[in-house]
Amino acid sequence: MTIFKTNSKITRTTNNKQPRMTNSDTINLGLTCDMHVHLRDNEMCELVTPTVREGGVSVAYIMPNLQPPITTAEQVKEYKDKLQKLSPETTFLMSFYLSQSLDPEVVGQAAKEELIQGIKCYPAGVTTNSADSNVDPNDFSQFYPLFEVMQREGLVLNLHGEKPSCDNDNDHIDVLNAESKFLPALQKLHRDFPTLRIILEHATTKDAIDTINEINKDVKNVEDVVVAASITAHHLWLTVDDWAGNPLNFCKPVAKTTRDRHALVEAATSGKPWFFFGSDSAPHPVENKARYLGVSAGIFTQKHAMAYLAQVFDKVGQLDKLPSFVSNFPLTFYQMNERRKSMIVSPNDNVVLFKHKHIVEEKTVSNSGNITVVPFQPGFELDWDVKFV
Amino acid sequence: MTIFKTNSKITRTTNNKQPRMTNSDTINLGLTCDMHVHLRDNEMCELVTPTVREGGVSVAYIMPNLQPPITTAEQVKEYKDKLQKLSPETTFLMSFYLSQSLDPEVVGQAAKEELIQGIKCYPAGVTTNSADSNVDPNDFSQFYPLFEVMQREGLVLNLHGEKPSCDNDNDHIDVLNAESKFLPALQKLHRDFPTLRIILEHATTKDAIDTINEINKDVKNVEDVVVAASITAHHLWLTVDDWAGNPLNFCKPVAKTTRDRHALVEAATSGKPWFFFGSDSAPHPVENKARYLGVSAGIFTQKHAMAYLAQVFDKVGQLDKLPSFVSNFPLTFYQMNERRKSMIVSPNDNVVLFKHKHIVEEKTVSNSGNITVVPFQPGFELDWDVKFV
Repeated sequence: MTIFKTNSKITRTTNNKQPRMTNSDTINLGLTCDMHVHLRDNEMCELVTPTVREGGVSVAYIMPNLQPPITTAEQVKEYKDKLQKLSPETTFLMSFYLSQSLDPEVVGQAAKEELIQGIKCYPAGVTTNSADSNVDPNDFSQFYPLFEVMQREGLVLNLHGEKPSCDNDNDHIDVLNAESKFLPALQKLHRDFPTLRIILEHATTKDAIDTINEINKDVKNVEDVVVAASITAHHLWLTVDDWAGNPLNFCKPVAKTTRDRHALVEAATSGKPWFFFGSDSAPHPVENKARYLGVSAGIFTQKHAMAYLAQVFDKVGQLDKLPSFVSNFPLTFYQMNERRKSMIVSPNDNVVLFKHKHIVEEKTVSNSGNITVVPFQPGFELDWDVKFV
Repeated sequence: MTIFKTNSKITRTTNNKQPRMTNSDTINLGLTCDMHVHLRDNEMCELVTPTVREGGVSVAYIMPNLQPPITTAEQVKEYKDKLQKLSPETTFLMSFYLSQSLDPEVVGQAAKEELIQGIKCYPAGVTTNSADSNVDPNDFSQFYPLFEVMQREGLVLNLHGEKPSCDNDNDHIDVLNAESKFLPALQKLHRDFPTLRIILEHATTKDAIDTINEINKDVKNVEDVVVAASITAHHLWLTVDDWAGNPLNFCKPVAKTTRDRHALVEAATSGKPWFFFGSDSAPHPVENKARYLGVSAGIFTQKHAMAYLAQVFDKVGQLDKLPSFVSNFPLTFYQMNERRKSMIVSPNDNVVLFKHKHIVEEKTVSNSGNITVVPFQPGFELDWDVKFV
């Protein structure tokens, strides 16, 4: 049971046609968000962009790790236009890729014009398309002038919170402790920029959950959260056992232990507004997943995003916590209620979750037949489905 | 530097033509052993059996997890005959698959006739072809009459030392802690059968190394070791990072952290006679490794077994510890020096390691072309090669 005074303006204004319902068979999730989405480029983009809405998501925050990465206003405009054409009813929130090439003044201007709502930070070498990054997670000081501007303009800093693996006399870092080792850097950033809005993206460990809870221990109102963690659907399902021998379930950060998974489920269903949904849905062509070396990291959950979440929330008897996790908490953190209200393309969207058993398809294929993506949990029978009302 | 009084009868008698040399370019390893070998059946068996010798191994202990598993004297005779025809100069030590179907009297007779030298225990569901096992690692008591016979007859109990994964109120076990969670069961077995020869196969954790050291803390002579751990080549190379996204490096038990890898290298190069070589070389057709779900667990190291080891021992400046690790220690543990001396097919074998850079091939293909196996570290340049003299 949440202890927070929630600001539910958004859900009240957008739910004016239909009050929130929570009975055993139907749940109104309100105006739903997925605050961590990879839509790629070219034919893959055409294939997956419509699945945002299919999965029950109205507002999507889009990752900038294309090749080349998105670092200019022109790239953002062009990419957003393309996405909007592919899915006219979806609200796309856009981001820059953190890089030394970003000019703080240009960033400030892009923020004022609401071209971008945040900047994504990928430490060099930790995940897909991060090889070009020159971000050293041991020393963010080169970006402090930029972070000053971001703090002032209310931009969100989206952190891929992992240190790169290393094995030397000073430190031992691998994919299992990479997130835990990053947490002191997150805490320092928050100390140095106390009002900068920071998200530890796709949290995977009990250590991360504990750290985010600690940072927020004195927060009383939803609006006062400045450091949050996004949580994916797949990390609520998976542990290390599920990707050992199953490259389809391999992603970065990797799923950890049962103890960690339990901490994530507890956080997602806690009603604490500093935990909200970001799917990190990351499609790859099937041939890049079915390899014996160099499998691409990423799991495609977009097409059933809300249903995957509902499956877990239901199992632990916390379905009534799902609306806040996917709507009020992320909307409030991204200041969509007042400042960015006009950006919402379909403000009257209500996503209704209803009981309907359906099987996750074995694959999703592009129109040309050139790209096949295998979704998360192919063949699994999900208990819930979604519709927009 | 080892503190042990070593019984080097074997190396003296078999090395009578050529004294052990240790200079910078050539090392005589003596009569070499690989005490954990999977040779499979049918065409795969024909492909990989000759690679035992190619990899520099004279004496091989053969795993019984065929389908159906080897549980009778007839199966052992037939399988050994087949292997011997495929590689006439190799010494094959044979084993039974631990199962309720094993009659202690039959086992005792097979031991007396030296048909088998040990019995392999696979807890149900932990690795390749273990699904049929009915072994509950939480309670070995059903096998105590059998273990009595094994202890009396000097048979080795080869333990796949992992508990099956579980996630319930009582315990959380995953592929990362499965070995550590098994160690109390090993300790209990040793307490209950203090002279039963037990090998914790393919040790992967610092916890396992510490446990084996603790059990042997009062052992003064090589001949007095009754509880040992075998160590593979690949676990000296790999950590979790290497199989995350690289199914070729996926095996059971999985490679763990850098801390664990360092402990294994330290153990293998320690000169302690309770650590010796067992490759757990486990070939799979490439199509079973390049999958997005259900990748087969196992790494094929047979063809370059000694070279893979030498690469690591050399890197840490401990090449002089390699001969004991692959010869005297395993030969002594398996009582090959006196009791089973006559079993050695090529008693005058000496394997010489010599400096010779060579590239690991990209694949090994059966004569028919039907089976392709990708070896460990394809394309890697190894510094050492082997020859029999």
